[in-house]
Amino acid sequence: MNLRKHLASEITRLDGRITFVDHLAGNAEDVTMAVAWYPPDDAFDHYPNLKAVCSIAAGADSIVMNPSLRDGIDVVRVVEPAQAEMMSGFVIWHVIWHQRRFATYLANQRDRLWKRLGPRAASEVPVGILGYGAIGARVAADIARLGFPVKVWSRSAKPTPDGIAGFHGADGLTAMLAESEVLINLLPLTSETRDILSSDLFNRMPRGGYLIQVGRGEHLVEADLLAALDSGQLSGASLDVFVGEPLKPEHPFWNHPGIMLTPHDACDVTRPAVGKTILATAEAVEAGVRPKDSVDLGRGY
Amino acid sequence: MNLRKHLASEITRLDGRITFVDHLAGNAEDVTMAVAWYPPDDAFDHYPNLKAVCSIAAGADSIVMNPSLRDGIDVVRVVEPAQAEMMSGFVIWHVIWHQRRFATYLANQRDRLWKRLGPRAASEVPVGILGYGAIGARVAADIARLGFPVKVWSRSAKPTPDGIAGFHGADGLTAMLAESEVLINLLPLTSETRDILSSDLFNRMPRGGYLIQVGRGEHLVEADLLAALDSGQLSGASLDVFVGEPLKPEHPFWNHPGIMLTPHDACDVTRPAVGKTILATAEAVEAGVRPKDSVDLGRGY
Repeated sequence: MNLRKHLASEITRLDGRITFVDHLAGNAEDVTMAVAWYPPDDAFDHYPNLKAVCSIAAGADSIVMNPSLRDGIDVVRVVEPAQAEMMSGFVIWHVIWHQRRFATYLANQRDRLWKRLGPRAASEVPVGILGYGAIGARVAADIARLGFPVKVWSRSAKPTPDGIAGFHGADGLTAMLAESEVLINLLPLTSETRDILSSDLFNRMPRGGYLIQVGRGEHLVEADLLAALDSGQLSGASLDVFVGEPLKPEHPFWNHPGIMLTPHDACDVTRPAVGKTILATAEAVEAGVRPKDSVDLGRGY
Repeated sequence: MNLRKHLASEITRLDGRITFVDHLAGNAEDVTMAVAWYPPDDAFDHYPNLKAVCSIAAGADSIVMNPSLRDGIDVVRVVEPAQAEMMSGFVIWHVIWHQRRFATYLANQRDRLWKRLGPRAASEVPVGILGYGAIGARVAADIARLGFPVKVWSRSAKPTPDGIAGFHGADGLTAMLAESEVLINLLPLTSETRDILSSDLFNRMPRGGYLIQVGRGEHLVEADLLAALDSGQLSGASLDVFVGEPLKPEHPFWNHPGIMLTPHDACDVTRPAVGKTILATAEAVEAGVRPKDSVDLGRGY
């Protein structure tokens, strides 16, 4: 099986993050699948026989929205339990960072100030999650287990386990926001979700709420976040993704006292996970079947 | 039932932390139980008919070691699931603080430095827990659920669920330490556990390990911790408890770059939880039976 062999040699090149669209065979006509991450606008035009494109992460928006993507090309995402686990730990840390006021502890330590803050129980800090796919389900279950009341929202109705309240649609969003002190964004980026994290949304949360933004930079209206923080509508925000990455040194987020930011590092996809997805996709393409974890291009995720 | 009525009126006074030994009836001879937290050395001498003393938290060492405690007085601890839950969230935050290098993210944010750190999976960060009572069991289960390999140690052998490896005794301690990148101290303070967190113990951990100290200040040999941090044997430590509290402003822990500290605030006992324990103890005393959650005074916890 030449394809598998060839892919295996490609996979050894996947050190760190992948930012290329590369052909997987010698001639452009021979290429039936590609691996991509924020590909150039004309990337797929070069490969007339392309059948599938693998994203290297859970988000496939940069491929789905690529102008050269055409009918007959499946887009495949990496859906990996280890990835959901990594995201879950990262998000939990930020929920507790807010709940237990660790930023205040750090500031007090710098001031050599011994001051008890009187911790609130997890049961007093309701958490809402936007997005209930494989990652959202894992995050919701883990946070609920720690005692936080958890609600989840998705575009269409989805079943949820005991202890996790499910919401969907426009009315469901309003209902969930009203009871979410902490709001976690895990949505895919689509034309419907772009700019969803706006003043309109923040104003439907309880005053003093907290945003954890681990979706895509384009979900957030940056000026609206700054306004919500400055007015006290939000008490703080943890941001891992941004419209412009790397974030420019002069960006106001860097030194805003209400913002904790990380450099799009919440969740790394491991080389074995990417490799497994690439191989499975190659086998599906070779067999002439639709690859597992293909994106529904109509809805965009 | 007069006793219950009287206790109820006392409980409304339990605002914040309790630092008193107070009688629960008009005359010292009438007092059959007390509520205490770090009582004076002669505290119990004043009450000839004392049958039980309630601690207001899970640790009862300050009562067990009190010189005026005599035969025939039971010591009762607050054992409350909500307390274990609160401790669990606090400890998890510190495990992930180490795993994901959040101190570095915070420093990079101050420097406006966009730098990915390449996260390690939870499965790569083995955690060892000293102490496997009600709190240790909850902490171990929650940490294991997030994907960390978890080992626990207790004085005597205890059953553990699948996925949590149990160790006990002196040999078991050495075996667990050798595989614990993160070490969490949840031990009770007894004559056997005093000073257990020492150079001798740190040197049996993998180089670059991390200590989370939420037991009692007297478990830790402070100079040994500073030496271990300065030599690199430990990469860092989170400390919530100290030999001298409040920690003096000139103490070297405050501004040590490897130490994150909090003011003995990991776990607050709620007024309802304390009240429930006091009432249950009062009822037991009145009925002439041994109160639930009484300490085994021979072993000290």
